[in-house]
Amino acid sequence: MDFNLQYAFELLGTYVFAISGALAVRDKEHDVFGAGFTGFITAIGGGSLRDILLGSYPLVWVGDIWVLYAILAGVLTAFVFPSIMLKLRKTMFLFDTLGIALFTVLGVEKALSLGVRPEIAAIMGMFSAVMGGVIRDTLVNEIPILFRKEVYASACLAGAILYLVLNYFGIERDWNLIISGSLIFTIRILAVKYKLSLPRLD
Amino acid sequence: MDFNLQYAFELLGTYVFAISGALAVRDKEHDVFGAGFTGFITAIGGGSLRDILLGSYPLVWVGDIWVLYAILAGVLTAFVFPSIMLKLRKTMFLFDTLGIALFTVLGVEKALSLGVRPEIAAIMGMFSAVMGGVIRDTLVNEIPILFRKEVYASACLAGAILYLVLNYFGIERDWNLIISGSLIFTIRILAVKYKLSLPRLD
Amino acid sequence: MDFNLQYAFELLGTYVFAISGALAVRDKEHDVFGAGFTGFITAIGGGSLRDILLGSYPLVWVGDIWVLYAILAGVLTAFVFPSIMLKLRKTMFLFDTLGIALFTVLGVEKALSLGVRPEIAAIMGMFSAVMGGVIRDTLVNEIPILFRKEVYASACLAGAILYLVLNYFGIERDWNLIISGSLIFTIRILAVKYKLSLPRLD
Repeated sequence: MDFNLQYAFELLGTYVFAISGALAVRDKEHDVFGAGFTGFITAIGGGSLRDILLGSYPLVWVGDIWVLYAILAGVLTAFVFPSIMLKLRKTMFLFDTLGIALFTVLGVEKALSLGVRPEIAAIMGMFSAVMGGVIRDTLVNEIPILFRKEVYASACLAGAILYLVLNYFGIERDWNLIISGSLIFTIRILAVKYKLSLPRLD
Repeated sequence: MDFNLQYAFELLGTYVFAISGALAVRDKEHDVFGAGFTGFITAIGGGSLRDILLGSYPLVWVGDIWVLYAILAGVLTAFVFPSIMLKLRKTMFLFDTLGIALFTVLGVEKALSLGVRPEIAAIMGMFSAVMGGVIRDTLVNEIPILFRKEVYASACLAGAILYLVLNYFGIERDWNLIISGSLIFTIRILAVKYKLSLPRLD
Repeated sequence: MDFNLQYAFELLGTYVFAISGALAVRDKEHDVFGAGFTGFITAIGGGSLRDILLGSYPLVWVGDIWVLYAILAGVLTAFVFPSIMLKLRKTMFLFDTLGIALFTVLGVEKALSLGVRPEIAAIMGMFSAVMGGVIRDTLVNEIPILFRKEVYASACLAGAILYLVLNYFGIERDWNLIISGSLIFTIRILAVKYKLSLPRLD
């Protein structure tokens, strides 16, 4: 994949995460600052946690100012066009799903490049994608979506594992990104469409 | 500013944060240990998060034992004189506001000294001041004060940005600390006095 | 203590923490993935926070894959034998108490070995044992057990301080581990048996 294309996707994913984060607190007692703050945390939380756990510095958004600008753009979009954004819920959902698919596989890749074992890299990939939302939900005092929603983090974990398996068998990296990301995207879309969920303990 | 004077202010700010943290759980189901724990988290949370995000080790309170003693003194004060402390609410509020003003500008300065861009330094300064309270509120299962209260974190962000602007134009550092800190202090005092708040999204 | 014996105990403690974490969400709206996730966070949370605060990398579970396998075994045990595990509540409680005793003293030891002052090492030891549970409770939107339960974190702190005192007086390390760990174990068991709790602020 063209490096610039991948980078553009990453910024787009960050932008969409920031929008969804800022909109997530609309029905709560949050002012615009709180909404912006929540958008920010949602967008950077997962990647930051991954890098802190791996001891990889500087954090992505600390080292690359464009990440911050993508977040600001997302928050502003949520502020200026909130009703349009809410009408675009389905489109937003698609982008958000693209975002978690992309962040998972890139997170796995980054962890591997830092020399950790594949099992750890799978966890780090999943964390990259979902922990921003977990931190957001915890801050606004809700049970994290991770625990409630149809197959979500588990889709990421499945994609992360597929990436590692294909990588082990020598599949070319760009194809691997596309195939493994598509698995996450597909599982998540089907889970929402057909309201699939994992069983509970009982 | 005299180094020792600044250091004394930092310890005083830490002391006040610990008092307010320990008192914050008085109406909750917390024993004295839980109150002390909450005071500790409130006092060290913001600075620790800033330093972890920046990868700057050792953390302040790990490297300087006097910070811990200031916290212990604050927690003990809250334990021994709880009713006096509650009567001194207005005085405490003033010190707390001084604390967030000071921690913001010193946080910006520290981040700049570690070589990050000004935009990032502004966020780090704000985090230094407010994230201890956010972590405290999350732990005691409340919506963080950051999201509810009259202009609070946004006052810190405004002061942080002023510091960076004045720094850019070469204002001498001590004056800058005083001017930018005063802006935070003034906004916060006025916001509470006149119940100013930022608009909500709707 | 034989290194291998200590290591076996650590893995056993991790295994038990993972079981108790996974079972903690049985009455909540969590699916099996959420339960496994919670077990994982409970097991690695305390040690990871300690190492992040100390800047000690790699984190234990990132560097040693057996920790992850112990967690997976714990989560599977909770899944496959939930009712047996709940009947074994008393046995589980004993192992859990052994776990916090062990993690506290080993956490103190690790912090000391990284060169921090004893006061800081005591806090790090306590954090190693209890913060996994605090993070778990925060995620599932409950007031952390730390703040509610009979003498819990304070027992760990007492044992940590005893370890440091005995260490100061030159007691041999293995005996120190056993004596200080036993103090934690005994306080906790007595506190639960006689429903002892620390006073509240009022």
